[in-house]
Amino acid sequence: MGKEFTFKVKVYYEDTDAGGIVYYANYLKFLERARSEAIYLLGFSNKKLLDEFGSLIIVKSCNIKYFKPAKLEEVLNVISNIKIITQTSFIMNQIIKRNDETITEAEVHLVVVNSEGRPIKIPNIFESKLKEYL
Amino acid sequence: MGKEFTFKVKVYYEDTDAGGIVYYANYLKFLERARSEAIYLLGFSNKKLLDEFGSLIIVKSCNIKYFKPAKLEEVLNVISNIKIITQTSFIMNQIIKRNDETITEAEVHLVVVNSEGRPIKIPNIFESKLKEYL
Amino acid sequence: MGKEFTFKVKVYYEDTDAGGIVYYANYLKFLERARSEAIYLLGFSNKKLLDEFGSLIIVKSCNIKYFKPAKLEEVLNVISNIKIITQTSFIMNQIIKRNDETITEAEVHLVVVNSEGRPIKIPNIFESKLKEYL
Amino acid sequence: MGKEFTFKVKVYYEDTDAGGIVYYANYLKFLERARSEAIYLLGFSNKKLLDEFGSLIIVKSCNIKYFKPAKLEEVLNVISNIKIITQTSFIMNQIIKRNDETITEAEVHLVVVNSEGRPIKIPNIFESKLKEYL
Repeated sequence: MGKEFTFKVKVYYEDTDAGGIVYYANYLKFLERARSEAIYLLGFSNKKLLDEFGSLIIVKSCNIKYFKPAKLEEVLNVISNIKIITQTSFIMNQIIKRNDETITEAEVHLVVVNSEGRPIKIPNIFESKLKEYL
Repeated sequence: MGKEFTFKVKVYYEDTDAGGIVYYANYLKFLERARSEAIYLLGFSNKKLLDEFGSLIIVKSCNIKYFKPAKLEEVLNVISNIKIITQTSFIMNQIIKRNDETITEAEVHLVVVNSEGRPIKIPNIFESKLKEYL
Repeated sequence: MGKEFTFKVKVYYEDTDAGGIVYYANYLKFLERARSEAIYLLGFSNKKLLDEFGSLIIVKSCNIKYFKPAKLEEVLNVISNIKIITQTSFIMNQIIKRNDETITEAEVHLVVVNSEGRPIKIPNIFESKLKEYL
Repeated sequence: MGKEFTFKVKVYYEDTDAGGIVYYANYLKFLERARSEAIYLLGFSNKKLLDEFGSLIIVKSCNIKYFKPAKLEEVLNVISNIKIITQTSFIMNQIIKRNDETITEAEVHLVVVNSEGRPIKIPNIFESKLKEYL
């Protein structure tokens, strides 16, 4: 049982669409904010990974299921877990909840790449931090 | 072999991020524009479905794979196919290409719902149009 | 000298563009989040205004000046002041700062309208709250 | 009387918000798409300006007025005029119309900068093209 990261998001007008609910692509923004803050809690950041290791984390795939719609000015929690770590990549499970209700659930495959976009071995110090949360 | 819909998209600054490439959530906007135009070619529109049938098309799930990054001012083609039609839903396969190169590929599960968000039988006239493209 | 509202924003990938900086339209999202939270601090919300008074706050004009670019993972402060209150509208001055440096400054004219989009007298209880911050 | 550029935009779900209308920041995306295509018609592009002259066009200020709301699946025209050209900058007037009705009008001040963000003399060949449209 790994540790998990919880990140709070509030829904503003920018996130919604004419259907009165959060636009389906915008949940991916919430997921990415939560991942950025999870990485920050591990002592890293996208900026630090780039500056110190010349590496970027890119999304290889995202499988998202929409269960319930979220609405204007609701407060949501994004709960992120690291599921699998490989040489060059890791998989996160991310659930967006409104209180106890699951709004969406996503499995996101992330790959560490160099500035040319080639997958590279996850920097050791970052990998060992990730493993603590496995 | 079903018919397919092709929709052209140009990448503007709004679509890109500080990585110099299209932001991963923004491809879902391209996919949705292409679906809207596909529905328009069938003689329908989101507005018409709402006004005449009180129904909306919502995304139930989206499984997207990112193969290559797209960049500023590139012109992309979104190629959409209808794969499966059920009583209340249909599945589309959508591929985004830059010339012959596949940028992303997504399987999108769409459900027809009423104004309360409940799945409903796809309106007959819309269903028969969808089936022509199966 | 009126009171002011301060709201913290962090820059994520979604906010940036291929120029490596925050995309010019996205600052308007930061401004709107800050206004929403200011209204919330007054004991209101867009939802509450709609539910209880059938009224919406819309933007009539926005005059924004860009002084410095903001970058990925920077933390910004949006400082909002109410400048003028009329029968149906109010003007806010909003400054986005990175530490002591001004990133952008905007003057935003907001109008209270009914569900048909017609300007209406600002609800008394909301007006008196706004006036406390003038 | 200068020449003008007309660019067609269709409103998709991504552009709208829970108020049922185009979100106020998203009009700035429409304006920027129209400017990109105007520059393209002059034989340039943001990419070309960067590759050949090491220069970028940035927005210094944007004064936008919102007259009427635009709605889902409406087709709009962005009409852009070059008003003033200085050594390092130019001002465009941009009007968004739905048929004959003005939706928004903006005055946008654009500056040509180098890779460090410093204003530079507009490249001669680009300047002479701009002047043809004055």
